[in-house]
Amino acid sequence: MSDWIPVKQARLAESSGRPCEIRGWVRTRRDSKGGFSFIEINDGSSLGNLQVVAPAELDNYAGEIQRLTAGCSVVVRGELQASPAKGQATELHASAVRVLGWADPETYPLQKKRHSFEKLREWAHLRTRTNTLGAVMRVRDQICQSIHRFFHENGFLYVNTPIITASDCEGAGEMFRVTTLDLERLAKSGGPVDFSFDFFDKPTFLTVSGQLEGETYATSLGRIYTFGPTFRAENSNTSRHLAEFWMIEPEAAFFDLADNMQLAEQFLKQVFSECLQCCEEDMAFFDQRIEKGKIDQIRGVIDKPFEHMTYTEAIKVLETSGQKFDYDIAWGSDLQAEHERYLTEQHVGGPLILTDYPSTIKPFYMRVSDDEKTVAAMDVLVPGVGEIIGGSQREERLDVLRKRMAEQSLSEDEYGWYVDLRKYGTVPHAGFGLGLERAVQYVTGMANIRDVIPFPRTPGSAEF
Amino acid sequence: MSDWIPVKQARLAESSGRPCEIRGWVRTRRDSKGGFSFIEINDGSSLGNLQVVAPAELDNYAGEIQRLTAGCSVVVRGELQASPAKGQATELHASAVRVLGWADPETYPLQKKRHSFEKLREWAHLRTRTNTLGAVMRVRDQICQSIHRFFHENGFLYVNTPIITASDCEGAGEMFRVTTLDLERLAKSGGPVDFSFDFFDKPTFLTVSGQLEGETYATSLGRIYTFGPTFRAENSNTSRHLAEFWMIEPEAAFFDLADNMQLAEQFLKQVFSECLQCCEEDMAFFDQRIEKGKIDQIRGVIDKPFEHMTYTEAIKVLETSGQKFDYDIAWGSDLQAEHERYLTEQHVGGPLILTDYPSTIKPFYMRVSDDEKTVAAMDVLVPGVGEIIGGSQREERLDVLRKRMAEQSLSEDEYGWYVDLRKYGTVPHAGFGLGLERAVQYVTGMANIRDVIPFPRTPGSAEF
Repeated sequence: MSDWIPVKQARLAESSGRPCEIRGWVRTRRDSKGGFSFIEINDGSSLGNLQVVAPAELDNYAGEIQRLTAGCSVVVRGELQASPAKGQATELHASAVRVLGWADPETYPLQKKRHSFEKLREWAHLRTRTNTLGAVMRVRDQICQSIHRFFHENGFLYVNTPIITASDCEGAGEMFRVTTLDLERLAKSGGPVDFSFDFFDKPTFLTVSGQLEGETYATSLGRIYTFGPTFRAENSNTSRHLAEFWMIEPEAAFFDLADNMQLAEQFLKQVFSECLQCCEEDMAFFDQRIEKGKIDQIRGVIDKPFEHMTYTEAIKVLETSGQKFDYDIAWGSDLQAEHERYLTEQHVGGPLILTDYPSTIKPFYMRVSDDEKTVAAMDVLVPGVGEIIGGSQREERLDVLRKRMAEQSLSEDEYGWYVDLRKYGTVPHAGFGLGLERAVQYVTGMANIRDVIPFPRTPGSAEF
Repeated sequence: MSDWIPVKQARLAESSGRPCEIRGWVRTRRDSKGGFSFIEINDGSSLGNLQVVAPAELDNYAGEIQRLTAGCSVVVRGELQASPAKGQATELHASAVRVLGWADPETYPLQKKRHSFEKLREWAHLRTRTNTLGAVMRVRDQICQSIHRFFHENGFLYVNTPIITASDCEGAGEMFRVTTLDLERLAKSGGPVDFSFDFFDKPTFLTVSGQLEGETYATSLGRIYTFGPTFRAENSNTSRHLAEFWMIEPEAAFFDLADNMQLAEQFLKQVFSECLQCCEEDMAFFDQRIEKGKIDQIRGVIDKPFEHMTYTEAIKVLETSGQKFDYDIAWGSDLQAEHERYLTEQHVGGPLILTDYPSTIKPFYMRVSDDEKTVAAMDVLVPGVGEIIGGSQREERLDVLRKRMAEQSLSEDEYGWYVDLRKYGTVPHAGFGLGLERAVQYVTGMANIRDVIPFPRTPGSAEF
């Protein structure tokens, strides 16, 4: 019978007095002159370690315990007692320390010395053994759990839209090709490429968005959301871009833009609140070590009603701001990150939803407004990051959709199924997209998006 | 101010007397001689429709209401009243019926006539408007929600292992290639292929399993699970195979095979129980219309402790069964579906976990047992489907792992990161994999796996 408990639980004051077993990895060992050693153990269940007090009387004290170094795996039995030391409620007085695995300090990369996040990316298979990356992944998990719960509680069904696709979601970005053709043989063939030999009998790609397929489910099941990987084959070596990332895309029938904005606001507030509640220790760490003031910034998003402004109003604000921007401001051109951040950080000082963008800079599926110049689009901006959510009401009128498709040379042969949704029982509907990694970056304050996904895929890099 | 409620809620007896608005799609309309029409409305929130009683007094009765056909979208306002009709607690007495979208009965494919599931696959963008596919997708959502909740409650962190990979998880299956090379240009090049021009500077593929990457997280964070798409480029045109499917793979540090079996049993029981509880109406539908006795079969899995048997024992049972099988039985060869089904359905009459398979038929990462002939593998078999889960304890001993890798010609260059987990603080660990679609197929009784995933990908088919 095992009385194993996770370190997280062992560290609680109320666990004091309890006999138990701890299983984890050594972070540090310090030998005291008093005839015992202090060993800090982490098992991934929390940021904080459990301090083990191992007396010299133990059989393997000289032979093993005094040889323990960072990374060694151990099973410790003993009794939890109130700790006299600062910053920890309990400590484990060991009656047995069993070493499962050693970690040669000559070669083990994660010694006490601090490594840059860049260096740690080379050891992506080990980097969650560090405080920061462990905390990031616990927060990432919490965000994912909150997202599923939020939608489930609000009557949205989880839908898995396809990853391999023959359609390209209106050119949202460069795509990766998926094929089973033998490239070496193909290279010798002289061409042309015969896709009837490919797995799907035609060119196929990795999805850039599940929205269009998601709409087919919203217009039958009412409220749905996707949560899956999406891809961009763009040669962007920035701290904000990944070739493979996870996206959440809710879509709801009978929603207009106002419903959509309300949903996005409730959604962000609930997910962020649960992060602060459920990851208190990890969030305090980010607030202290990664980005000072992060918690207050997030509280600002949770506590304040989001402001609203049309794109046209935003252009006026920017034009009269007296601020110098790198990019020119003109009605009809896309806002740049610097503009968005000025609006949310300087002008409003809190979350801001921009709406009613020029139709010329937005995709064909967004609903054309009565002015015939703008579409019912929305972008949610938050201080510290700018755009975090983008969405729109969708064009539900068959004739208007067809006109927009024709303008953008999209064929009804290819998008016939999408048009069908407007032919048969069309309804107003709306939705938005949230990039998971952008959200994790925002919450944790991590500067580089490659440090908030387990194994980042970027140009030239698909390790592990 | 909207007093919209979903059909699911409107159908509850306690909603009687309530004024409300319903938004959905017409399933059928029937005009009564008494001066009113009955309209069945579905909005995807439940299998059952809400019956609307629309009196001839309504303004648009002759002009619109009497023209309503299957698939039209409507917003109905009125008061819910107790229904005198059998099989429904309430009905909506309409004070206004607004038609949002028509569905030309000449061209709308989903008329009252029954269509084969095969035919419905051609209309995958509309098929969730039918009873069966709607029910499948609600059950699929429930299974997904239960899976996330189960692991969250048991301290497992959700981890997104990579989709694009340069490693091949020990050849678990044929892989799709991912590339940004211009195939037409490549075909004219004469070869050889220069991958330094490809996005990742090397050949990359779609993942067949996240297990190996998952192990890196389990050996730092303790307990993790993956839930994501996986791929097989196999030319299998069967009712049980997809080229793209979703897989759940938990992995836990300090777990041995016994812990792993216990986890799998608790997991299946909880997920299946919640299906029966939360999807009562949908499950009754499957039990009546798709596979008689399904609910009792699932209850059998929930209520009974799973039996255990070694592979060696199973071979003996099969050899002495007197049963005729298409495939020969011999120690050292893999069990076929017919053998597995005999064992779980005829011999045990309930769920069965087979363990300790010959090492020669299992991958290099499974833990070699003391007999040096078998590995600590487990397959969970259930009546009606056979294998539903496969897993193992992993080889944590550096020397044994290296030997196994050498035997299978796996290079430490490529798998160095995986070997590192055994070099630095190695721990016993174990995990398993569940194919989501197999689980949905089992729970719903749907005969073809293409009918339990929104947009199935199979050889020659990547529509939508």
